[in-house]
Amino acid sequence: MNPNYQYRRRLHWGDTDAAGIVYTANYFDLCMEALEGWFVRVLETDWFSMNIDQYIGTPFVHADVDFKVPMTPRDTLIIEVTVGRLGEKSLGFKLYGYSEVSKTVTFSGNFVCCFTDTKSFQPISIPPQMRIRIEEYKNNQHLIMEGAID
Amino acid sequence: MNPNYQYRRRLHWGDTDAAGIVYTANYFDLCMEALEGWFVRVLETDWFSMNIDQYIGTPFVHADVDFKVPMTPRDTLIIEVTVGRLGEKSLGFKLYGYSEVSKTVTFSGNFVCCFTDTKSFQPISIPPQMRIRIEEYKNNQHLIMEGAID
Amino acid sequence: MNPNYQYRRRLHWGDTDAAGIVYTANYFDLCMEALEGWFVRVLETDWFSMNIDQYIGTPFVHADVDFKVPMTPRDTLIIEVTVGRLGEKSLGFKLYGYSEVSKTVTFSGNFVCCFTDTKSFQPISIPPQMRIRIEEYKNNQHLIMEGAID
Amino acid sequence: MNPNYQYRRRLHWGDTDAAGIVYTANYFDLCMEALEGWFVRVLETDWFSMNIDQYIGTPFVHADVDFKVPMTPRDTLIIEVTVGRLGEKSLGFKLYGYSEVSKTVTFSGNFVCCFTDTKSFQPISIPPQMRIRIEEYKNNQHLIMEGAID
Repeated sequence: MNPNYQYRRRLHWGDTDAAGIVYTANYFDLCMEALEGWFVRVLETDWFSMNIDQYIGTPFVHADVDFKVPMTPRDTLIIEVTVGRLGEKSLGFKLYGYSEVSKTVTFSGNFVCCFTDTKSFQPISIPPQMRIRIEEYKNNQHLIMEGAID
Repeated sequence: MNPNYQYRRRLHWGDTDAAGIVYTANYFDLCMEALEGWFVRVLETDWFSMNIDQYIGTPFVHADVDFKVPMTPRDTLIIEVTVGRLGEKSLGFKLYGYSEVSKTVTFSGNFVCCFTDTKSFQPISIPPQMRIRIEEYKNNQHLIMEGAID
Repeated sequence: MNPNYQYRRRLHWGDTDAAGIVYTANYFDLCMEALEGWFVRVLETDWFSMNIDQYIGTPFVHADVDFKVPMTPRDTLIIEVTVGRLGEKSLGFKLYGYSEVSKTVTFSGNFVCCFTDTKSFQPISIPPQMRIRIEEYKNNQHLIMEGAID
Repeated sequence: MNPNYQYRRRLHWGDTDAAGIVYTANYFDLCMEALEGWFVRVLETDWFSMNIDQYIGTPFVHADVDFKVPMTPRDTLIIEVTVGRLGEKSLGFKLYGYSEVSKTVTFSGNFVCCFTDTKSFQPISIPPQMRIRIEEYKNNQHLIMEGAID
């Protein structure tokens, strides 16, 4: 059984552009939704609570997507989230988006965030309780091969 | 004098998130606005006319941004667009975003689009009249050094 | 049991603005998501299929929202969709948004779309098979009283 | 000469949906941009500074748009902003959107915001210096007749 977190999301009319496909920039919104879902599932918190209650921000320092197959609202998108490089203060993710209909990988991406103190705007070490959960997830995750989605 | 195309855009309240800074995913909308502005200025067309009137699409196959400094609506963003790799069917761009107030580079990014026939969905060679203009722009552009904006 | 269609959606970090609440304009995206969900559930089609396969458009001619209580990503939004005025060529909706946590109505809205032929851009009568389903939904729906959500 | 504030904005590829026209929900982003522009021009402040520096919020309690003519990125949108009802704590606006190309009114809308203290979340009276400027604008503005744009 695949232990990786998967974010499932019907594609909406509002995600499209005049070419009749999901608009380039909107994929980054979709990836951010998936990443926030990963925080909720794995760290049992969310960015709003972290920022407002715990004064912990996670601004992204890098985001990239390689687009392989265009998508339309005929499809439902599944984004699978794996942990990449885990640093002292930064956390990298590798994302695979694929079509629920065809099981084809439609895009892949890399996102890196940096943990910060929202009061001082300075980077901070990833809090130990969070690090434990991230490492546990990382140790159990399945690596995804291009084009081979379970 | 700097010959590079610059897209200038006041940052809006609606660009922000609850951390009080421009939201990660919105930078990709801003970059796409800048790239569309480049097409209008340099190729004297726009993506809508290309798609609808000429049946030429330019879906993006890659997009990445490295975020260096957070931005807020106190600032106006300037995105400078330079041409990167010019292939037979693909066109790469290097973008630098910087603050009009501080002249600091706040992010850089790379975007690659592929020219396609919107009827067959197949890649096509960049039309010759467009290639001439792209090469002319590329030959005259200034390369941007990190942190050294004119 | 409440027969009305309810669209359920966790509020995301990306929905917020620098005031720490869901951004005004984003409520209209949320309402459009709910309305598209209603088409999928009740008419067993979606706007993309209607437009591309059936050449039926449903451009909106009116949209309004009254905002009562601000929302944050601590909450999950539920939008309940009821049919309002059903005309020959137009279809009105009354929407109620409420908090899953507090059960409080947080906004209400009215949306009206007009059925059109996407080839001629002319208004058309609502197709009979659709009208039957809309009337059936309307006859069975519960009217919602302000502040009294089941 | 028309003394009304006009917000001018080229329509972008990213504003469209798969019907090839500006997406319904995006008009509310466009209107919010125009309203923020009005605050910058007439009140010489912006929502970010008001919220962060002056602890004054202006959450919207009502927004509506009537859509008359679809728009595409072939066009440039002009939104003309007039002041409607000016209350003790609330401020209403009437907006007209029109095409720069055809001079046709493409939509009209009404937006109402309420001044609040961002620390207590309570409504406050509109600050006197702001009220003076709003009244001055209102006294000098031209009322717009449907279909009669200068």
